[in-house]
Amino acid sequence: MSSPLDNSYIRHLNGSENGHHNGIETSHSPSPSSSSRFGDDEIGIVNMEIYFPPSYVDQSELEAFDGASTGKYTIGLGQTKMGFCTDIEDVNSLCLTAVSRLIAKSGVSYADIGRLEVGTETLLDKSKSVKTVLMRLFKESGNTDVEGVTCTNACYGGTAALFNCVAWAVESAAYDGRYAVAVCADIAVYARGNARPTGGAGAVAMLIGRRPALVLDRGLRGTHVEDVYDFYKPEMASEYPTVDGKLTIQCYLRALDRCYARYCAKREASEGGTVDLNSFDAVLFHTPFCKLVQKSLGRLRLNDFVRTPKEERLARFPGLEGFLNVELESSYFDRDVEKAFMTDSRELFEAKTKPSLLIATNVGNMYTPSLYGGLVSFICGAPTLDSLRGRRVGLFSYGSGLVASFFSLRFSDDDSPTSPLAALKRSLGDVQTRLAARNKVTPAEFDRVMRERELSHHAAPYEPKADPADLFPGTWYLVGIDEKHRRQYEQATTSYANPQVNGHS
Amino acid sequence: MSSPLDNSYIRHLNGSENGHHNGIETSHSPSPSSSSRFGDDEIGIVNMEIYFPPSYVDQSELEAFDGASTGKYTIGLGQTKMGFCTDIEDVNSLCLTAVSRLIAKSGVSYADIGRLEVGTETLLDKSKSVKTVLMRLFKESGNTDVEGVTCTNACYGGTAALFNCVAWAVESAAYDGRYAVAVCADIAVYARGNARPTGGAGAVAMLIGRRPALVLDRGLRGTHVEDVYDFYKPEMASEYPTVDGKLTIQCYLRALDRCYARYCAKREASEGGTVDLNSFDAVLFHTPFCKLVQKSLGRLRLNDFVRTPKEERLARFPGLEGFLNVELESSYFDRDVEKAFMTDSRELFEAKTKPSLLIATNVGNMYTPSLYGGLVSFICGAPTLDSLRGRRVGLFSYGSGLVASFFSLRFSDDDSPTSPLAALKRSLGDVQTRLAARNKVTPAEFDRVMRERELSHHAAPYEPKADPADLFPGTWYLVGIDEKHRRQYEQATTSYANPQVNGHS
Repeated sequence: MSSPLDNSYIRHLNGSENGHHNGIETSHSPSPSSSSRFGDDEIGIVNMEIYFPPSYVDQSELEAFDGASTGKYTIGLGQTKMGFCTDIEDVNSLCLTAVSRLIAKSGVSYADIGRLEVGTETLLDKSKSVKTVLMRLFKESGNTDVEGVTCTNACYGGTAALFNCVAWAVESAAYDGRYAVAVCADIAVYARGNARPTGGAGAVAMLIGRRPALVLDRGLRGTHVEDVYDFYKPEMASEYPTVDGKLTIQCYLRALDRCYARYCAKREASEGGTVDLNSFDAVLFHTPFCKLVQKSLGRLRLNDFVRTPKEERLARFPGLEGFLNVELESSYFDRDVEKAFMTDSRELFEAKTKPSLLIATNVGNMYTPSLYGGLVSFICGAPTLDSLRGRRVGLFSYGSGLVASFFSLRFSDDDSPTSPLAALKRSLGDVQTRLAARNKVTPAEFDRVMRERELSHHAAPYEPKADPADLFPGTWYLVGIDEKHRRQYEQATTSYANPQVNGHS
Repeated sequence: MSSPLDNSYIRHLNGSENGHHNGIETSHSPSPSSSSRFGDDEIGIVNMEIYFPPSYVDQSELEAFDGASTGKYTIGLGQTKMGFCTDIEDVNSLCLTAVSRLIAKSGVSYADIGRLEVGTETLLDKSKSVKTVLMRLFKESGNTDVEGVTCTNACYGGTAALFNCVAWAVESAAYDGRYAVAVCADIAVYARGNARPTGGAGAVAMLIGRRPALVLDRGLRGTHVEDVYDFYKPEMASEYPTVDGKLTIQCYLRALDRCYARYCAKREASEGGTVDLNSFDAVLFHTPFCKLVQKSLGRLRLNDFVRTPKEERLARFPGLEGFLNVELESSYFDRDVEKAFMTDSRELFEAKTKPSLLIATNVGNMYTPSLYGGLVSFICGAPTLDSLRGRRVGLFSYGSGLVASFFSLRFSDDDSPTSPLAALKRSLGDVQTRLAARNKVTPAEFDRVMRERELSHHAAPYEPKADPADLFPGTWYLVGIDEKHRRQYEQATTSYANPQVNGHS
């Protein structure tokens, strides 16, 4: 197996470093990044958009309403606010909103898109894909030549869509060369009880192509797949999942161990040296709840510890001498190990992971978009473009059942005002304003909406009761479902009280 | 946009025709095909396996049982027999059987697989993917680093899985180079009434990689996508779809027109000359029922007619002078047009399409595997290897909702005894024997099984009532569903009355 490094080396030998390598004529000039390993083959995220619903419930108020102990949701889970959808939004409308906003602000036309791929586990139909519903956005452009369908594997569907879009963009560059769009969206709701505060809702759309702001490190993915029933949705008529809480935490952590080990081995083979948490400027995780992410960073620190030869451990990890004999497989629920490595990695967490939790703590678990909401948070939170330039980010995507991958992205080295990176940062400049502009509802009202969703889920015909005037302007929403289950959508055009958030639509 | 032809030309200029082009070290020697446009980039189908259930109902007996007029199913729809599953098989078991047989007979190990992708619209869970269930086959190999999830868009999911596997194999050749497996499976059942005889069930698994028996013509795909509700499954708790019969025929034919036009334009731009039905050695279709396929070939003949300049039409299409003013859009249900072009294309149908309908007429509509069952039929029906060598096949894949593609495959020019093509042909050598070894049941028994499926669909806990001894040996089957909807599978090991069909398991 040749390593990715070989590519540029062999291209160099072939005298085809720029312009015509791979037999592909490229229209773009080479990236200014001299550290690029793929040259014009660089494919990744050109632009991003996030959508979250305009209403939320406060987690400390929800604790009181649920009769839970104070801090159970806010400190125990690390959650602050939870976004939720009324009956006027469904997974189709979430995707319509995210994709239409992405295209509008990216300065591309629907005719420039050659692939559109959806990741979701909020299925409204066993046959018709969300992707086909999104084609109404393309109608005016006349472009119907758009590959891609819907990818499903719990919270991993968005990552599958992203990887598929990147592979498509690489493979079809020679004869197509258009952009791809990966969009992921879910409405995460739980029956009353312990899991309810871990809900959320939202969508992330990503424009994929050449000259990206964020390059995908192809060839460095570590994937782990197992056949388990940790979290699944066999009750087809219900919105609620079936969850084995303890098993799913164990599966998440085991998959993290395996994926990280594979990623590190591939990167060490490719780049040399030792790969550990210091090899990343940021580490982002799929986030069922924020506390699990802090534990997960501690878990990676434990992985680094275990991967270090015993004789070197104490020099590199002072104060952890009590854990020299810890094994990964037997420590998933060892509280002493968990606490020691969380404490040991606290500074790393503050620096490399906490900035990615803005959306996760304020919107909740969005399922497929969760990890990409983390990426949006990280970009929004960066004080300057310079603090993103050239930075390398590790990402862990987990989907129950299970499929998981650890992979990495690199921010472009070009942070000039007209660079893709500058455009991406500007493009996400309104996220904090939009978060702040949301409407807080009482836990009682939230509970009423949940009950209404239960009663109306899959009902046909159905006319939504919520008011489109409550949505952010430009939001797509469900107008009605006819007696044959056919869904109709429109775009909210009403003006919004806070004109600051009306930038993109 | 550069054309695929440019690739080999530019590689030639770079002096990298063999061995190291694209910076990829290839382990295989170049294909003996001198007409290859992609050289070592050639990716496609290395091997195939088909599975269909061991029981069928005779369509003429079903006509009588249903009180339908004689010939309604057999002549009107073109269907002979319909395969169906008892409660001991589900979409997971169908895929387990097809993949395990494919790997066993291909001489590869589960460790050689880097991607496994499933296409289906028979969803048993809204979150857990069929792909994860298949991982139990990989357990002994220790290989859990296998990308891919489940792709869903009605009957198009298998094509999405195939395209994703090819793109993955191309994109990851430099740093992975393992095989991919695309598997598609469905159980197509309808409520009592007109649509019931158009059911079927089965699975097709394809091994994707370099040095294939069948090369995918990358860059020549014509795709058409629309947002329509022609056939869909909004009743999540039911196995039966919601169908607008007339609309779905119109959508199928319109998508065929659009995809074919796009394919022809891309191929003419790439290869020069005029592309029409004479440009293919065979033309295969997604087959809801066989009569629609015969109409569809007539439809392509109409497309060729309309694409021909008016002044040349009568010379190329004698006897069709009455149709000079026909337009595609207004002729979907014009019986005179349909009849004239079906008659005009009868010889083409007999030569290029009918050989692909063996599985479709004897098993029925398998949904996602339907088109690939057509490919299996075509290979099985070829009298000699020489009659496949170098042949080019056009394929039309249609998934309601809708996503459709017209694309092409080329059989390898190498038909030596050790060639991949010879191995593929041998590998499918038992299909006709297996078809003949099936068990005919009465329409009354079939109806009883359908009622049993209705009652038990999504039931938990559940213990299947059918006898595994009725299955072909080596078939995976459902042992039981526990109270938490977790499904258990085993592999039938009982010996079968006809040892001829026991070749692969």
